[in-house]
Amino acid sequence: MTDHTGTTADDDAREDMTNPLERKVVTAILYAVDVGDRLRLIELMEPLHPADIADLLEQINAFDRMRLIKLYDREFDGEILTELDESIREEVIRTLNPEVLADAVRELDSDDVVDLLEDLDEAQQEAILDVLEDSDRVAVEQSLTYPEYSAGRLMQREVVMAPEHWTVGEAIDYLRRTEDLPEQFYHIVLVDPKLRPVGNVTLGKLMSSRREVALASLLEETFHVIPVTRPESEVAYAFNQYHLISAPVVDENDRLVGVITIDDAMAVLDEEHEEDILRLAGVGEESRLSDSVLETTRQRFPWLAVNLVTAVLASLVIAQFEAAITQVVALAVLMPIVASMGGNAGTQALTVAVRALATRDLTGSNVWRVIGREVMVGLVNGLAFALVMGLVGIFWFGSPALGGVIAAAMVINLVVAGLAGIVVPVVLDKLRVDPALASGAFVTTVTDVVGFFAFLGLAVLVLL
Amino acid sequence: MTDHTGTTADDDAREDMTNPLERKVVTAILYAVDVGDRLRLIELMEPLHPADIADLLEQINAFDRMRLIKLYDREFDGEILTELDESIREEVIRTLNPEVLADAVRELDSDDVVDLLEDLDEAQQEAILDVLEDSDRVAVEQSLTYPEYSAGRLMQREVVMAPEHWTVGEAIDYLRRTEDLPEQFYHIVLVDPKLRPVGNVTLGKLMSSRREVALASLLEETFHVIPVTRPESEVAYAFNQYHLISAPVVDENDRLVGVITIDDAMAVLDEEHEEDILRLAGVGEESRLSDSVLETTRQRFPWLAVNLVTAVLASLVIAQFEAAITQVVALAVLMPIVASMGGNAGTQALTVAVRALATRDLTGSNVWRVIGREVMVGLVNGLAFALVMGLVGIFWFGSPALGGVIAAAMVINLVVAGLAGIVVPVVLDKLRVDPALASGAFVTTVTDVVGFFAFLGLAVLVLL
Repeated sequence: MTDHTGTTADDDAREDMTNPLERKVVTAILYAVDVGDRLRLIELMEPLHPADIADLLEQINAFDRMRLIKLYDREFDGEILTELDESIREEVIRTLNPEVLADAVRELDSDDVVDLLEDLDEAQQEAILDVLEDSDRVAVEQSLTYPEYSAGRLMQREVVMAPEHWTVGEAIDYLRRTEDLPEQFYHIVLVDPKLRPVGNVTLGKLMSSRREVALASLLEETFHVIPVTRPESEVAYAFNQYHLISAPVVDENDRLVGVITIDDAMAVLDEEHEEDILRLAGVGEESRLSDSVLETTRQRFPWLAVNLVTAVLASLVIAQFEAAITQVVALAVLMPIVASMGGNAGTQALTVAVRALATRDLTGSNVWRVIGREVMVGLVNGLAFALVMGLVGIFWFGSPALGGVIAAAMVINLVVAGLAGIVVPVVLDKLRVDPALASGAFVTTVTDVVGFFAFLGLAVLVLL
Repeated sequence: MTDHTGTTADDDAREDMTNPLERKVVTAILYAVDVGDRLRLIELMEPLHPADIADLLEQINAFDRMRLIKLYDREFDGEILTELDESIREEVIRTLNPEVLADAVRELDSDDVVDLLEDLDEAQQEAILDVLEDSDRVAVEQSLTYPEYSAGRLMQREVVMAPEHWTVGEAIDYLRRTEDLPEQFYHIVLVDPKLRPVGNVTLGKLMSSRREVALASLLEETFHVIPVTRPESEVAYAFNQYHLISAPVVDENDRLVGVITIDDAMAVLDEEHEEDILRLAGVGEESRLSDSVLETTRQRFPWLAVNLVTAVLASLVIAQFEAAITQVVALAVLMPIVASMGGNAGTQALTVAVRALATRDLTGSNVWRVIGREVMVGLVNGLAFALVMGLVGIFWFGSPALGGVIAAAMVINLVVAGLAGIVVPVVLDKLRVDPALASGAFVTTVTDVVGFFAFLGLAVLVLL
């Protein structure tokens, strides 16, 4: 079998890729905007999906964006708005002709309108709510009463349901009679007389069963009901863990109020991951490529300020050993190595721990085993690099004692890095502080301080 | 409207969460294993989804895992195998009674068997292929001829299709007649006489249309056809970007050979993100919490080795300034601050760049603008921290000249960090090296070397 696995698909990834926003296309579109050729612009935009148009608007600069939107005018599709990054959504909404905006918003499903409204200021929210029909407006306002980032905000209110005692035939006749079914639906939700969901029947099962079969006999095995206040991150986790396609949402009385589908869950999962990566790197989680210089500076400044405090702490440790450094200047040359190795080892351990906490793989059942593992990994890697650095000390500086000091400091700091890398995120998680956000600063402080102190302290004991 | 948005769902995230693997449950299960109480074990495992059982097996230690599997015996469900991390899958397969393994594998869909086989050694692959029925075996072996991580490996071969000239009635009658429809399907794929897909009809549309309506008039607007060799990462991107639910897969002659559904795409997206995070932190992308100490050490060692080279390079720079440090020992105290701030600012910029490349937000159309932005952000943050460090130099060391030197070095290093943080990933991407994997080492080398050189070099010019 092994001969089958020789090639991997990544090799020719890009040749194969059809990129709708090729450089050529973007250039042609911007040229059409420059010369004000509306027909040509519409022609060029026609093959693009609203998601691609949103990407295009994010990639070009603000001036081109404004001119493009003005020229495109009433071709502007509501779905483009829902696909746009929040950072430029407000700007685009302000640019749009009010009539075009009204048409665009009226096309959207209620959950998309909610998503749109969440990030706008009050005046803009009112402007959009005003163009909705009364029933839509009520639905949207109702959704906005649920907490931000909850299932209630994520769900769509349009649900296809049936009484639990119906047969396949009754359900099919009902579907055929009903005028305004949702655009996409995958299940019929069976409900009891109090409107509490009791199970899902897939459309596939419905289509392939005889008319007289009871719906209740066709229920899917996996059935998850989601409370309306559940955080969207947990909703995404459940969809991913249990391979759900859609799940009913219930209010505090267990009554069916909406349904969440996998595409919404996938979008949440995508955002959560993005936030985790950006938080781990100390970048504001809302960071976008289209943010301005000032906005970006503002997002990154706090993390750099935290790092400055950490670095100054480390400097205070070094300052205690000024006399030693004046006598053996090699200490100053070698000391950043110990701190840097510790910082990297700590980051490795904490990244694994933060991810495992997010995916619920790190629990009370295995936390001690994982702590033990990290310490052992730190010890083994520490010994390996101690050997290397010992040799560097001997051959570069001709001092076996200096080699011994840096080797011992390396072992100490890598063990501490492994320990801090797992303990800090676990403790932060217990304290309900997001470990992705805060672990890095703590762990680096520990490895910097311990790294400098162990190396310089041992040097004073052994060399002076 | 603003009063609606006061609470966020994250506040009471954990109370709300129903965790099927609570400590209590795990303890009870391990106790049942300890005393060999098979009925109690089965009773405790009964409410758990196969995905939860797989998580449980990953969290407990190898000895408990073996005893649990032996005791659970023929209750073992095939789906547990597909949910298990690769790192312990082989071990579990070796532990399973061959008859139980055979039963478990026979339950699975062909794409799940393929997924299972990919990571096994040849002997285990043969053992599993041998228990399959001939037709399944052929299907699985056929799938394994496609490149690893390609659409061909991801797709399921069971497709529901219909000739493009059919009506709704003909399709419904066909579905009702067909015995072995796939477990889950969401579309009927319309094909031309050469079996080339021409469009999708959702089951919802099918159910709600009259029998005499032509299928061809019900086609979904968004329709993506995926070549069988396309990398799975691009498949996941397309599902996420265009909100696809399922998409037909075609061979080199554009003939329909399978279908990919959103749950598979979601799993790929999840893995890709995981890999990105782990790569950025210099942890082997296959890193699992259940890996052994030796395996974990092996994964992390290379990155630490690269970092050691970086750190030694930085030390070589410092060594050029030994004389200066002996004269002004404050240089040794302050120099790590400049390097550390540069490293952090560089990591911020590169993380944003790596993510933007992965999501295709950073393209030829905006790369120069983003480079300009990063340089400006580095300059603004550099000036802010230069002010702070200048004051530190004056008040801590009583030396305005030292303050000026560290301030100037800070500005230089943060600008260089911003520049390196964007240029390095972009260039690596152009060279088809994964920027998530290699950017960190390059950027840190640059910021360390520039940080020490700028600070110590300016100090020599100004102070000595």
